[in-house]
Parts: sequence; structure tokens; C-alpha cells
Amino acid sequence: MVGIVPQACICDLTHMVRPFGVREGALVLAASVPFFPGAVHLAVVDPGVGSRRRPLVLTAGDGSVLVGPDNGLLIPAAERLGGVLTAHELTNPALARPSPSPTFHGRDIFAPAAAHLARGVEPGEFGPEVIPGSLKDLGMGRPVVVDGWVCGEVLAVDRFGNLQTSVTRGHLPRLAPAEVLQVRVGAREIRATFRQSYAFGPEGELQVVEDSRGFLALSVNLGDAAAELGGVVAGEAVAFSAGDRSSA
Amino acid sequence: MVGIVPQACICDLTHMVRPFGVREGALVLAASVPFFPGAVHLAVVDPGVGSRRRPLVLTAGDGSVLVGPDNGLLIPAAERLGGVLTAHELTNPALARPSPSPTFHGRDIFAPAAAHLARGVEPGEFGPEVIPGSLKDLGMGRPVVVDGWVCGEVLAVDRFGNLQTSVTRGHLPRLAPAEVLQVRVGAREIRATFRQSYAFGPEGELQVVEDSRGFLALSVNLGDAAAELGGVVAGEAVAFSAGDRSSA
Amino acid sequence: MVGIVPQACICDLTHMVRPFGVREGALVLAASVPFFPGAVHLAVVDPGVGSRRRPLVLTAGDGSVLVGPDNGLLIPAAERLGGVLTAHELTNPALARPSPSPTFHGRDIFAPAAAHLARGVEPGEFGPEVIPGSLKDLGMGRPVVVDGWVCGEVLAVDRFGNLQTSVTRGHLPRLAPAEVLQVRVGAREIRATFRQSYAFGPEGELQVVEDSRGFLALSVNLGDAAAELGGVVAGEAVAFSAGDRSSA
Repeated sequence: MVGIVPQACICDLTHMVRPFGVREGALVLAASVPFFPGAVHLAVVDPGVGSRRRPLVLTAGDGSVLVGPDNGLLIPAAERLGGVLTAHELTNPALARPSPSPTFHGRDIFAPAAAHLARGVEPGEFGPEVIPGSLKDLGMGRPVVVDGWVCGEVLAVDRFGNLQTSVTRGHLPRLAPAEVLQVRVGAREIRATFRQSYAFGPEGELQVVEDSRGFLALSVNLGDAAAELGGVVAGEAVAFSAGDRSSA
Repeated sequence: MVGIVPQACICDLTHMVRPFGVREGALVLAASVPFFPGAVHLAVVDPGVGSRRRPLVLTAGDGSVLVGPDNGLLIPAAERLGGVLTAHELTNPALARPSPSPTFHGRDIFAPAAAHLARGVEPGEFGPEVIPGSLKDLGMGRPVVVDGWVCGEVLAVDRFGNLQTSVTRGHLPRLAPAEVLQVRVGAREIRATFRQSYAFGPEGELQVVEDSRGFLALSVNLGDAAAELGGVVAGEAVAFSAGDRSSA
Repeated sequence: MVGIVPQACICDLTHMVRPFGVREGALVLAASVPFFPGAVHLAVVDPGVGSRRRPLVLTAGDGSVLVGPDNGLLIPAAERLGGVLTAHELTNPALARPSPSPTFHGRDIFAPAAAHLARGVEPGEFGPEVIPGSLKDLGMGRPVVVDGWVCGEVLAVDRFGNLQTSVTRGHLPRLAPAEVLQVRVGAREIRATFRQSYAFGPEGELQVVEDSRGFLALSVNLGDAAAELGGVVAGEAVAFSAGDRSSA
């Protein structure tokens, strides 16, 4: 990228997404893109590299551009930026490295594409248009309400052991600080208090916190919630209920 | 930060401090600041985010500026730069992101403050002055001598398993290369040879080395001292004695 | 480095090489240098820091410059850039930090040298010439053929658990996609299919892939090959045979 567009400001967000963590990467990307208006966003979590999944450049409603594989990684970010306006497949060999390796499109296809976009190449020059409706979509972040339970999933476990869920505070609009919630994670059902931030509850107590992305997170103050709940991993079902109040 | 002060040179030191490792972060910061004269130093290890701990900007004796939480993280670095001259709380909303998240002050309060300082905003514009004597201080790096033992603590365990202690070579001024020391770590008492660098002793031997920050470290050549000593962690007591020599 | 040559573009490749992983670091470096033509390459994996191993600056056949310890780390990269043309020891104190720590040459000797080279200082100004034939060479990447087996070694295990070997596809020139190979790793002998990329085989199947550096890698689609093979580590012997075909 430095060779193609030396004057670009490259902000390296993270290399700490877990192997094969497409959903985790999608969450990190969606959480980050609003802080870089006008940027070209490049993301690669790509266990399907070299298979038939398409390499893509998307434009979003706010004019932002996203580059990455067609495995759902880019969709939550694009939705946060106003939705997918246009999508093109990256097929133009003149805008990639010669003889791209079938095992490292990040280096040979995606990074050169992002650099060419940063120097002003138009998305349409990279290859044929793709119908947005045909893009792979993991359906993240769209909880459903069943019998008073807001049902979502664990999107990611961060390095502190906090469980980041797909449920936002907007799904439980009457939730008040210090209120006790019923929480289901996998087969367990537990009670947890809603706190304003990680350090508000007693040390070691399981609590629910609205994280900096607006999602509800399960957290243990100065502890590791994922471990205390028996090793919860991304993808597990989670549900919240404000419980007694609704039946009162 | 790039949005506030695009021309700044941002040196990203590390994201590898352990979760909740305020003391470890303080050590890394104190070790690093002398190499960046005139910089704005931003550090966030902040398990108390969102609670009542104050967000701070400090000026140090050499004119440097430090930004971070009032949990002791900044103090050893400030002392190394000539001590805390002034302290101000970060309360001015015009110099933070709108509606800061209670769970991510690093992004919404500290980083914008560092960027505004880098473009020339004065510390006094951020909020009310704080009395330096009221700042939280972890009391790191001040060993005491008892019965010929220099008693300190394990400040951090690095990714090689080296135990970085708060004892400096200055506490044992007559210490000579190849001299054998008595060492107490937690409940153990062991003997270890003082070596000039990690590779000087036989492979697998426990040794004492003066690290690049001037502190004594317990190290195993090509091994992991923390593991060999049974899982030592930061915060444990450690003591060194030159032993027989003083009684001779 | 920023203090010595502020206008330099510093590309930070990785801090994720395992402790003491000289061979792994050598592989990463050799894989990366062709993508940075004209750069000064700085690499430090240096368990022998402070001992008698020499600090070096090398020039390669294509005019590139490499800085690092004389422990074999730089050699595969230099070979990929046209071989070692000249070598000099870093002894000139005017081009290092004052009073270099015996435990951190990366900071006090190697990084300043790289920065001075980037601003145009000639390699000959750093210290006496070293005969290239005297440089430590780990002999990586030169497999031998015995009884139809191409015998090499596991150069590194990446964070996905893929085993990167020293055998290239060029050693098995008739190898075709979907062909089954005999593979020996340590004491085991297994069968694995040659696939075009990681995602081509069934989930969980052990396969052989040509990685983005041209080397054969043992990989499990969406799994961890090193763990499935019982904890293979870098340095173990590995051998490939196209098997029945040669005897047919």
C-alpha cells in the first residue's frame, strides 16, 4: 500500500481478531468505521481465501468504501454507514499484484485494491457489478423478542473475557441502572445487575453493561465473564429479560 | 486523533499489557517516556473506567505532558520526567467526543485530549486544577532494606517469562558479575547468579540480570522464569541479598 | 528512529514471533522483504543479546540493507534479495545510543543503526568489515531428497496452527491438485491431499497447501494442524513423498 499511495495515512486497527472469527471481525469493523469518515476501510478475516467467495469493493450510503471478502464481514459496517449502495467484484488484474497467491488475497488483492481506491480509482474499474442482494449476510445484530425475552447471540468475547452480545440497550428501553435482569446463555439462566460501567459492581460480580458500541455486554468486574460462565464462545445464544417488572 | 491533529506522529507503543495490569502499564510507560522527549504521552489501563476515578492531564518537570486515568498509571513516568508539576481534570466537553461512553474513556476522553494537547491546547483549558498530592500513587519502585535484604516486588512478567522487579542495581552497589545472590520470591528462597545479560548463563539456569530499564530481573536463559518458579505473577514480594559477603 | 530520521516511513511488520524464534523470524523476514524494495530492513530476535554474537549491517545483491544480530536471522532474507554482498559489524558508538544496555540492543544499537542508514549513512561507517563466509547460517530452506522423500523441516507454526515447511512446490514439480501425498512429521506418517488453498478441502481434513511464500504447509481447513498432529513445533523434521506414482 505504501508503494501504491505513499501519502496515505494508514491506521492499523487490530490484528487480534481470533482465527476464522468472521463475526468477531465484522463487529470490530462495524464499531470502528464511524470514527474514520471518508476512509477506505480494508478488512480481511478470510477462511475461504482461494475458494469461490468473491473479493469485493462496496460503497456505502455515506460515500465510504469497504474492501474485503464476500463472507459477511463487511455487511454490519456497511449498514452502519447507510447500507450498501453498490458492490463490485475485484477481478481487474491491473489493480492487483501479479500472480496473486491463492492463499493470501489480503496481501495480493485486497490491500492493493484499498490503496488504489485511496488514490482515487473508481470502484467500477475493479470488475463487474454485483447485485447487493446476492451478498453473503450473516444476519448479525438483529435480535428477536419471544415471550418477553430479547434473544440474540454472543458476537464476540474480548480479551478481558467480556461477552459482547447482539442485543442493544434500545431493545430494553425501560432498563434502569441497578436493575436486575434474567439472562440466558447457552443452557444456563442467571441473574445479573445492569451497571453503568465495568467498575460499578462489586469485584467478581457478574453484571450487564452497555458497551461503548451500544451493545449489552456480560462482564465481571476485574474478572473474566467468559471463563466464569464455563467457557462461553462467540456464536452462542443469549437472551435477556427484565423479568418481574413486566409481569407486575 | 488523526482527525484532530493529522500532522501528528503517533507512536503506538504496545497493546500487550495484561488486562487490569495498571502496575505493568505504569512500568512500561516509565521505561518508555525518556525516549520521546517533548511528546504527549497517552496511557490507558483503566479498570475503573466510568467510576469516580478522575481523568487527568499532568505536566512533568521536564515540560512533558501525560494523559490518563487517576489510578497511579502515570505517576512513575511523571517521576522519571522530573515529577508532577501540575495536574488538571479532564472535564471540558468541548475537548472530548460528544456523549462519551461510560465504558471507553480511552476513545472518547483521553485520546481526544492527547490530540488537542498535541496541537497546542494548554492543560488548564481541560478542566479544574487538581492538587498533585491528591493523585493516586501505587508506591511502585521504592524498595526498603531490612536485615541486609533489599525488599521490593515483582512489577511485571514479560512475554519471555522474565520477572521484572522494583529493585535496581543501585540498591546493591557492590554487586559484581558472576556473584551469587540469595533471592526470595513469595515463599521460596533460591540462589541465582548475577549475569551481564540473558545469554550469559548456562541454558536453563536461573539468573539475575540488570534489564534495559536499570531494574534487576529474574530470568532463565532460553527459558521461562515465571513458570519455573511455579507461576509467579506481578505484585508478589521479592527480596535480594548479597548474602555471605555482608556477614564475612 | 523518529528522532533520528523523522521523515522515514516506518512499517512495523510484526511483534508476534515467538520468544527465541530465530528461525520463525528469519522466515517471516524472508517472506516480507521483497515487498519493500529499497527499504532498510530491521529485524531483532536476539536471545544472544549481550553475548559475543556480532551486531550486523548487511548489503544484499539488489542494493537492500539489513540490520540485526549475527545469529542467522538475516540470511534467508539476504539470499532472497540476491545474497550477501557486504557485511559490517556495528561498533561505532557515534551511531548508537550512549551507554547501550547489554540486554536491549534492539533499542540501543539496531534501531539507531537502521535510522542512520535510512538517512544515508554508509554501511562502512558503522564498523569493521566482516567476511560474509563467517556469518552464522542456520541452513534453512534447503531440503534434500532421500529415497523419493523430500526431507525438510517445520520452519514455523503460525497462529492458525498451520505448519510452514522448508519444502517448496518446486521440490515436487509434478504435484497436481487433489493428489494424495505421504507426509512424515516427527515419528508419524500420514496421508494428506494437496489443495489449492485452505478452504478447498472438507472441514477438519488435513491437507497440504502451497502457501503465499511458495512453501508447502500442512493445514486443517477451519482447524489447527499443529494441535491435531499432537503439538508439532518449529524445528521438527518433515518429509513429503508423492508415493505410489514414482513406483508405478
